[in-house]
Amino acid sequence: MCVLGLGLIGGSLLRAAAAAGRPAWGWNRSAESAEQARDDGYDADTDLRAALVRARDQDAIVVIAVPEPALDSVLDRIGEYAPDCTLTDVVSVKGSVLAAVRRHGLADRFVGGHPMAGTAESGWPAGDVDLFRGAVWVVAAEDDTDPDDWTRVARLALDCGSVVVPAGADEHDSAVARISHLPHLLAEALAVTAAAGGDLALALAAGSYRDGTRVAGTAPALVRAMCEANAQALTVALDEALALLTEARRVLAETGGTEALVEAGHAARGRYDNLDRWEISDAAIGAPGWPQALRDAGRRGGVIRAL
Amino acid sequence: MCVLGLGLIGGSLLRAAAAAGRPAWGWNRSAESAEQARDDGYDADTDLRAALVRARDQDAIVVIAVPEPALDSVLDRIGEYAPDCTLTDVVSVKGSVLAAVRRHGLADRFVGGHPMAGTAESGWPAGDVDLFRGAVWVVAAEDDTDPDDWTRVARLALDCGSVVVPAGADEHDSAVARISHLPHLLAEALAVTAAAGGDLALALAAGSYRDGTRVAGTAPALVRAMCEANAQALTVALDEALALLTEARRVLAETGGTEALVEAGHAARGRYDNLDRWEISDAAIGAPGWPQALRDAGRRGGVIRAL
Repeated sequence: MCVLGLGLIGGSLLRAAAAAGRPAWGWNRSAESAEQARDDGYDADTDLRAALVRARDQDAIVVIAVPEPALDSVLDRIGEYAPDCTLTDVVSVKGSVLAAVRRHGLADRFVGGHPMAGTAESGWPAGDVDLFRGAVWVVAAEDDTDPDDWTRVARLALDCGSVVVPAGADEHDSAVARISHLPHLLAEALAVTAAAGGDLALALAAGSYRDGTRVAGTAPALVRAMCEANAQALTVALDEALALLTEARRVLAETGGTEALVEAGHAARGRYDNLDRWEISDAAIGAPGWPQALRDAGRRGGVIRAL
Repeated sequence: MCVLGLGLIGGSLLRAAAAAGRPAWGWNRSAESAEQARDDGYDADTDLRAALVRARDQDAIVVIAVPEPALDSVLDRIGEYAPDCTLTDVVSVKGSVLAAVRRHGLADRFVGGHPMAGTAESGWPAGDVDLFRGAVWVVAAEDDTDPDDWTRVARLALDCGSVVVPAGADEHDSAVARISHLPHLLAEALAVTAAAGGDLALALAAGSYRDGTRVAGTAPALVRAMCEANAQALTVALDEALALLTEARRVLAETGGTEALVEAGHAARGRYDNLDRWEISDAAIGAPGWPQALRDAGRRGGVIRAL
């Protein structure tokens, strides 16, 4: 496996793949992270051409783990040196990556990926060999996805200790808008509204404030990169939340009541707590209609724990 | 100290006051909690008249720790049997309690209180002798508050291990709307919007979802009791959050950007993380204008750690 980008996610992936016994090497644009990785005993360099030629020669999986703005230049080089390798990524928004891959004519061997793991930290030193253990790793199944490539990418995720959830790029992006990007915008709005109450309000803030604003502590550049790459799906999710809150505001001001929203929210959180992550045990990858069947299973909460 | 109501807060207070060496007894309407308290070695009964007559005879502080709906009936009995005792409460909304106390003619000796502590649990067994340790305890200073009563109530809070923040009932309610009640409504709306993404979205939900919706797991009756007792201040806070989110939605849809909200939210959370809880060391309680001076200090983030 050849991982491009050795930040938190890429760096953790290099560690996890090596720990799983895979031949694995990494590239990073800046020399500092590559050096830190080498100091920690990993195979890392700043020569992108060399990393990709080696991937081509060994038929390795190429994993894109660079920030969204660096995507196009990296895809250029992949097209040049390793266009026939299985290609995946670990970037948080799948639709825009898929579109970029298609623009570069690299869609044939591409399988989008997204490990749902991370911390507020970044960079090689923040990486963790166990970052993906027990996490959910989305492996995208599009209608034209190659079944062998899909299986290779899913096995990489399983080797890192994750469970695999199959989904289409578009439904993935709609889902993460709701469970990852919307929470960030609500946390930012809560932080601002609380601080508008002055030091008295902040002095009284306890658990519900701290939990509700925790992700507002994330570096703005990271939050913006995630949210803005998924602007369309995030707008839909934000509209739904705004509709709920606007109606709640109307009822609160008119009647003093909060029953409808509070009961619905409690029931919805209960649905998460009681979610049945059932195992997809009959995945016939490569059979006619397999991407649709996998996506349907993912939509119903199914996960793959072994292949 | 005589505490009326032996749920999570009242039960923890009985334990903490006894641990601090204060003569302390409790009353509870239902026999079960009173029995559990006695089984745990505390002085507890279901005879409200006896508890109050004893408070009167010993000049004890009477602490109201019953749910909001039971407030009026308990105030009736206090007016009958112990109208001249120092009176405080540990209910979360201060304006409505103060109004009820005034209606019952008990405002002369009343000092509102609100320990900012709690869990999602309730009832005597959920209580904890250390629940208030390190917590913030608001002790309300109104223009007509008696300085000796204020000092007695503040000392009780300090004896339980809390730091005291002085505030007026109205500014307390405005602050908790922002840092406690608004977080609940946002959590409920997030939980509903996430669940609308189906089992796929819930299967992908990770840290930002879990933190953002944690308080949606609180029993709806408790959330409603808090929010609805503070409907007016909560409407103001909700309007501010709605204005921020509506503007963010407009910019996101038009430009794909999120900079203004994300930067403001990050800065606001940083203000909380770096809050200077400075010590009010010159509180001259009883001096002319002392309630105003204390409230002003509280507004600027001041706390009392000893008296």
